[in-house]
Amino acid sequence: MKNIPLVMILFGGSGDLAHRKLYPALFNLYEQGLIHDNFAVIATARRPWSHEYLREQVSDAIHETHEVVDENEISAFASHFYYQSHDVTNVEHYVTLKQLAHDLDEKYSAQGNRLFYMAMAPRFFGTIATHINDQHLTGSGFNRIVVEKPFGRDLASAEELNKQITASFKENEIFRIDHYLGKEMVQNILPLRFTNPLIKNIWNSDNIQNIQVTLAERLGVEARGGYYETSGALRDMVQNHIFQIITLLAMPEPKDISAASIHEAKKKLLDSLIIPDKDVIKKHFVRGQYAGSDTTFAYKNEPNVDENSTTETFAAGEVKFTEGPVAGVPIYFRTGKEFKEKKNRIDIVLKHINTPYGKAHSNNITIVIDPKSEIFITINGKRISEPGIRRENLDYTFSKEELAQVPDGYERLLHDVIVNDSTNFTEWSELKRYWQFIDAVESAWDEENKSGKPDIPQYIPYRMGPKEANDIFECATAHWIYE
Amino acid sequence: MKNIPLVMILFGGSGDLAHRKLYPALFNLYEQGLIHDNFAVIATARRPWSHEYLREQVSDAIHETHEVVDENEISAFASHFYYQSHDVTNVEHYVTLKQLAHDLDEKYSAQGNRLFYMAMAPRFFGTIATHINDQHLTGSGFNRIVVEKPFGRDLASAEELNKQITASFKENEIFRIDHYLGKEMVQNILPLRFTNPLIKNIWNSDNIQNIQVTLAERLGVEARGGYYETSGALRDMVQNHIFQIITLLAMPEPKDISAASIHEAKKKLLDSLIIPDKDVIKKHFVRGQYAGSDTTFAYKNEPNVDENSTTETFAAGEVKFTEGPVAGVPIYFRTGKEFKEKKNRIDIVLKHINTPYGKAHSNNITIVIDPKSEIFITINGKRISEPGIRRENLDYTFSKEELAQVPDGYERLLHDVIVNDSTNFTEWSELKRYWQFIDAVESAWDEENKSGKPDIPQYIPYRMGPKEANDIFECATAHWIYE
Repeated sequence: MKNIPLVMILFGGSGDLAHRKLYPALFNLYEQGLIHDNFAVIATARRPWSHEYLREQVSDAIHETHEVVDENEISAFASHFYYQSHDVTNVEHYVTLKQLAHDLDEKYSAQGNRLFYMAMAPRFFGTIATHINDQHLTGSGFNRIVVEKPFGRDLASAEELNKQITASFKENEIFRIDHYLGKEMVQNILPLRFTNPLIKNIWNSDNIQNIQVTLAERLGVEARGGYYETSGALRDMVQNHIFQIITLLAMPEPKDISAASIHEAKKKLLDSLIIPDKDVIKKHFVRGQYAGSDTTFAYKNEPNVDENSTTETFAAGEVKFTEGPVAGVPIYFRTGKEFKEKKNRIDIVLKHINTPYGKAHSNNITIVIDPKSEIFITINGKRISEPGIRRENLDYTFSKEELAQVPDGYERLLHDVIVNDSTNFTEWSELKRYWQFIDAVESAWDEENKSGKPDIPQYIPYRMGPKEANDIFECATAHWIYE
Repeated sequence: MKNIPLVMILFGGSGDLAHRKLYPALFNLYEQGLIHDNFAVIATARRPWSHEYLREQVSDAIHETHEVVDENEISAFASHFYYQSHDVTNVEHYVTLKQLAHDLDEKYSAQGNRLFYMAMAPRFFGTIATHINDQHLTGSGFNRIVVEKPFGRDLASAEELNKQITASFKENEIFRIDHYLGKEMVQNILPLRFTNPLIKNIWNSDNIQNIQVTLAERLGVEARGGYYETSGALRDMVQNHIFQIITLLAMPEPKDISAASIHEAKKKLLDSLIIPDKDVIKKHFVRGQYAGSDTTFAYKNEPNVDENSTTETFAAGEVKFTEGPVAGVPIYFRTGKEFKEKKNRIDIVLKHINTPYGKAHSNNITIVIDPKSEIFITINGKRISEPGIRRENLDYTFSKEELAQVPDGYERLLHDVIVNDSTNFTEWSELKRYWQFIDAVESAWDEENKSGKPDIPQYIPYRMGPKEANDIFECATAHWIYE
């Protein structure tokens, strides 16, 4: 791998994401040689850390995520890290930051390349972007900025943030990151769809009855009630992860696998996204909040949550396009906290066909993203000892050895940023369409809240969400395949 | 299960097939109640056995094939068995046989139902059939005859035998048995093809590059060299088992699963079977004989085999139809003794498609018939840690519990005869087409033998047969998937 020189400026250097994901990912890229001698990381955060303390933190982060480590390697790696205590609203601090970046660029021969990474509370993104522009923090080489989700909290605020960022960065320098796009089985969707005649042949509205995307969590909001109150399932999971997955499932075939061709195909699809009206939302969308149990809090009683909160911890709904191979096919999504188990999966449900054997079950293609990587196809075969048809799962589960090879999503995506591959990042035009959709649903739900309608459904924790989610299907015989 | 009364007359009662397969199968049907109080079996053979000795043999046969047995059940079952020493050419013996059948019919209230089973050396089939007719052995109830393979040794002799049998039996009373049609995965072919849109959609000449059927044996001819010299791989395996499997793979969809509809669909296909000419046979057919090794005989040196024998122990070739969903698609078969392992399997090889990822492997659907029951689909997925495409097998292997449920082919087929279901038996019109095909190949090979061409290829035992079999494909890039 080619060694790429750069100075990385990380906003949120003392945070959880940096510790759990970014430091270990950078270490792996360092070990592979993508970054090596000519890089420095400036971690900023409010706390008064020293360089030395930061380096200890980085070292701890590597130890916590790696079974076998070489202490010399870690020390050498950590020596590239610098800490600056930083108040994001303080102009002086950006001046200091600029000087430090400049000095480190000289020290490490980083060729003026700058990588900015926004890994802190999203409410600061706009402020930081503005200061980067005002204090001219960009370098004389390449300049790239990675922006964590959420990118805005509705279309208007996303547009505002985008304006602030584009003051200093061009669209192709902005990497809106969604770590789901770094997951093995999400990255497998396009190869599966487009290299297999067996799959490609049925991937159309003639054959597919519906598509189902479930991103289910076992955990509740835990300590993050305060943040979650400003978000909810729709903004936290649907606007980004679920829509990215749906886009990969529904987009037309790109002419090649360059970032440009893939984004072109995505854009073509998203231009045809149907923004649901109130009637559709009433019939095909459901929200819910987890109720309490003997041993767990109801969402409303979680710390930092309003006891009259209308924030949804569960959302299900329907997405449709007028273009692409599955034009008109209902794509159902479902996401929620305090589900019976953590499970991220996609089910492609084929239409029933007439058979000489009478009624047969549908064929399904299932892609399990988490907790294991798995593909299975559910088909019909003969019953063994009596007449009739039974179901059989043709299964491919990743082995332990294969799973061990799977890089963490953040490692993949950081790699892509450094080599300037924007394939698995969200373009502004895509994001805009997602927000338009989300805004329509939020607005319908807000109206319901104001109309004094009964409370949003409470669901029993650690099961399958609100029972109302079983009634969102257009087809009377459709149901959730994962249940 | 309904108890069906009958007297069964078994020609070949002291033979291996009766002992290993028929007696255990009848016992299972007895335990299930399909035959129970109102049945008797007359076993005939040349040896001078007593009823008692036969019953001991039957009891032994059950013990050898069943792990847990109830001795009282076995005694009760065996008490229905009667032995008659019988010379198939002696008219008097048929008169005695007729009287015995009549007496047992009265004793067991068998309602005049007769089931004849030809389980002895095929050279006697015609003689027996003639005597059944001349001495009027048929009963006043239903009359059915089961005929083991081989049914003739070419079209002319098969026609002669058929004439002898049809003197006493109508076509729908004749059950030409092929135990491959009783195998679980062979019976699974039509359900897999016609109840799964995923499979049905690609099962056509637009998508299938070729189909491959391999029936490979690890064993040599062992003690059966004498019989094998009169047969060879083509007559022993291709004319029956391989053609039956090919017919199931290539036939059009039947309108329902009645025996009549299935045979109608098979007939429609077989009417379009292309009988290969000499050029095609030269290019796309290969025969071979296994050579010797340090520890094993060459076929030519096996006991009772002519040292100049031209009998093939391996045959491969191509079958094509002009009708049906795979009209024009080459269907390759391969069968042989002393292969590297026993393996009966079917590979459906799909055409390559253009992909945005460049070259991708073909998709294959594989059905393993023996030694285990298995279906797998080979598809492409992304490589884990680097760009590009790799192959993944989606697999369904029958569990131990499932395999334990699979009835033996003979039990299934005897059941079908008793309930008068001819679905899995060969109609005369089908058999005729198979022989026409085989006769064309035999005749081309005979001509080669006479032309003083070099000997037929000798192949190294316990590998993959003669290397010439790798060159029978029409498409330059095609190859055996199982290798």
